[in-house]
Amino acid sequence: MLDEIFENTHRMERVVEEGGSDCYSNKVMTTLFFEPSTRTRLSFESAMSRLGGKVIGTENAAQFSSTIKGETLEDTIRVVSGYSDVIVIRHTDIGAAERAAAVATVPVLNAGDGAGEHPTQSLLDLYTIEKELGRLDNLHVVMIGDLANGRTVHSLSYLLANYKGIHISFTAPENVQIPTYVKKYLDEKGITYEEEHDLEKVAETADVLYQTRIQKERFTSLDEYEKASGKYIIDRKILAKMKQDSIILHPLPRAGEIAVEVDEDPRAAYFRQAQNGLFVRMALIDKCFS
Amino acid sequence: MLDEIFENTHRMERVVEEGGSDCYSNKVMTTLFFEPSTRTRLSFESAMSRLGGKVIGTENAAQFSSTIKGETLEDTIRVVSGYSDVIVIRHTDIGAAERAAAVATVPVLNAGDGAGEHPTQSLLDLYTIEKELGRLDNLHVVMIGDLANGRTVHSLSYLLANYKGIHISFTAPENVQIPTYVKKYLDEKGITYEEEHDLEKVAETADVLYQTRIQKERFTSLDEYEKASGKYIIDRKILAKMKQDSIILHPLPRAGEIAVEVDEDPRAAYFRQAQNGLFVRMALIDKCFS
Amino acid sequence: MLDEIFENTHRMERVVEEGGSDCYSNKVMTTLFFEPSTRTRLSFESAMSRLGGKVIGTENAAQFSSTIKGETLEDTIRVVSGYSDVIVIRHTDIGAAERAAAVATVPVLNAGDGAGEHPTQSLLDLYTIEKELGRLDNLHVVMIGDLANGRTVHSLSYLLANYKGIHISFTAPENVQIPTYVKKYLDEKGITYEEEHDLEKVAETADVLYQTRIQKERFTSLDEYEKASGKYIIDRKILAKMKQDSIILHPLPRAGEIAVEVDEDPRAAYFRQAQNGLFVRMALIDKCFS
Repeated sequence: MLDEIFENTHRMERVVEEGGSDCYSNKVMTTLFFEPSTRTRLSFESAMSRLGGKVIGTENAAQFSSTIKGETLEDTIRVVSGYSDVIVIRHTDIGAAERAAAVATVPVLNAGDGAGEHPTQSLLDLYTIEKELGRLDNLHVVMIGDLANGRTVHSLSYLLANYKGIHISFTAPENVQIPTYVKKYLDEKGITYEEEHDLEKVAETADVLYQTRIQKERFTSLDEYEKASGKYIIDRKILAKMKQDSIILHPLPRAGEIAVEVDEDPRAAYFRQAQNGLFVRMALIDKCFS
Repeated sequence: MLDEIFENTHRMERVVEEGGSDCYSNKVMTTLFFEPSTRTRLSFESAMSRLGGKVIGTENAAQFSSTIKGETLEDTIRVVSGYSDVIVIRHTDIGAAERAAAVATVPVLNAGDGAGEHPTQSLLDLYTIEKELGRLDNLHVVMIGDLANGRTVHSLSYLLANYKGIHISFTAPENVQIPTYVKKYLDEKGITYEEEHDLEKVAETADVLYQTRIQKERFTSLDEYEKASGKYIIDRKILAKMKQDSIILHPLPRAGEIAVEVDEDPRAAYFRQAQNGLFVRMALIDKCFS
Repeated sequence: MLDEIFENTHRMERVVEEGGSDCYSNKVMTTLFFEPSTRTRLSFESAMSRLGGKVIGTENAAQFSSTIKGETLEDTIRVVSGYSDVIVIRHTDIGAAERAAAVATVPVLNAGDGAGEHPTQSLLDLYTIEKELGRLDNLHVVMIGDLANGRTVHSLSYLLANYKGIHISFTAPENVQIPTYVKKYLDEKGITYEEEHDLEKVAETADVLYQTRIQKERFTSLDEYEKASGKYIIDRKILAKMKQDSIILHPLPRAGEIAVEVDEDPRAAYFRQAQNGLFVRMALIDKCFS
């Protein structure tokens, strides 16, 4: 299934190069964001626009279920189904997208639900690795930053576990290590991994450095946050250690954990990665209608 | 005039079935919401999109007339007229839509103004009754819930008063009874009605159960709210009393006054009613341009 | 360059008269508003729509760079470039639009950055004068209101300084006089001007009365604000002094400094001026793509 999505994603790159399409000009997408995530919303809305479709939506979907209005997610989705050909949902609660899909009469795309899934992010991460390096097996991938709370890291680990010759290094501050259940999953899949605190060392053999933001809002105390943040920064010094045919990824936004001086290096693939998000989302929308 | 709108609404159902239209692809609708009402806004925006039109708008229109900006509604409308082919307005003040229409150089559609009118809701309510039951006369309609503050109930009562053989039962908690001026209007029109507290009893002969939400925000004390809420709930027990060829309507959102167990019953028409809102609004937009 | 823009603007008026265009139906505009300015945003979005293009955007762009997300403007623009064919930016910081343009891979249009520039406003002001009076030289222009903080006044002064036979009267309350640097610029350009407190007197010879709002939010005390506001109001009395072939402009919104009784007079050009904003923005968008 991933192969099919990636093939479609590649086709979408060409659609954009050729100036977009108007194949879905009669379709309406509704973006229902129960928490604002402007970047993700714009990416989906651009994807629909590039396919010729129409977009309506809101970043204030939370008012549907506010104490005053008190509507269930299911009711909201049933009503909005009647206005839409596809619904993109972003929610604060784990499982919300699945609940929405269960009652919707049109396809539902999950743009992230709480600490749950953010499947389009994982897809675009994986697509970027394949596009940049030409393969998804025999890779040394280094995950860096807040590995306890960063769901993109967990999802990407699960996806990578389907490929051969994968070795993962987890490089995290003491208080935000990779959870046991992720390691257990990798064990079951026979994927080798290590917890390694020396970024300079793992950078030498890495094919992919996957850096993530230390999310202040996930910490209960400023003290804990400060212990974690600033510990692992990718800068010119790290670049110098890296192989020529390696890449640096980041789900963005970044807050300083990749120095700006790195941006001009060809291995800095994070803005290309963000751009791939458009193509992946176009492919997913296309899949809904075909 | 209602006949013409309903005929057009029916035509719009077919337009949507056939995949939408692009007849108004050069038209621009502006949605000016001075208070958020995402469901209504999305419904209008989807309607315009289904007709091929473009949509711009805001849910923050209140900032136009904020203390800092201090612009009159009339000035806002004059300016926005220059950007639009049709304006949809939602406002907190009674009469705002009429004031807007007086100065606009393009058609204005009223998406609700305070405790005033919400004409598209009334139209879709009436359209739904006709579509579901095949007639608008010889009906026993039961209005349930907050009949003091629920403007949809008042508007629907006024509209029904134009038809023959209408009998209305008002079933409301003690502190939110139907206002005297509505009853007086019905008296003048020769419509029979009763205030009846026994929902099970009136359900037996009802053609339409029109349930409404007890709106917490309309009550000055929690005590008054709690007296009213939860008193009349449509559940399986009420369903069992109802005739086979009757329907349950609700302007939505609901907050528990119709049990979820009712949803699967074919008489539960409220989600189809919401969907009809799309068709009615398409018909109204179409009327603006033809 | 202004000549070319104005010629294009004039062409855009005809495009709108003829029902719009679909020449940019495959293009996507992203409006990134770091502070809400609904009027300006709607104007840009309508302009893009009238040219057939698609629009996505946000009025909450500030969340990108919030303390929690902490993203730089540059990163935001780099990512959004990947979703867009043109970006419209409104920001609170002087120079933000220039910083955005420096990293964007698509054209950036400045919809105002803090106390900095608001170039589309100046263009539409100038365009309106030429359209209404048939010339941009040999004009007596009276600038009225908060001349200290009103950036539109400064920008218009700079633009007018390029033409021959311009004379400017600055008519401002004591505490919000025109800044020295504007006067110095006019001196260098050889433009004559005066500071004149008698509005009735200057109105007699004015070709253009350019009225502006006393912006409450710019004053540190209510006392200072009240000293300034209400001092210069254009009403029937001022109208009576004005020449027949003169015009009244205002960047809007107004808060009472032009009496409503003036609106019906043919010299009241401020709503036509707002409408010209649409045509100017269409011309600028068109320029981005051709």
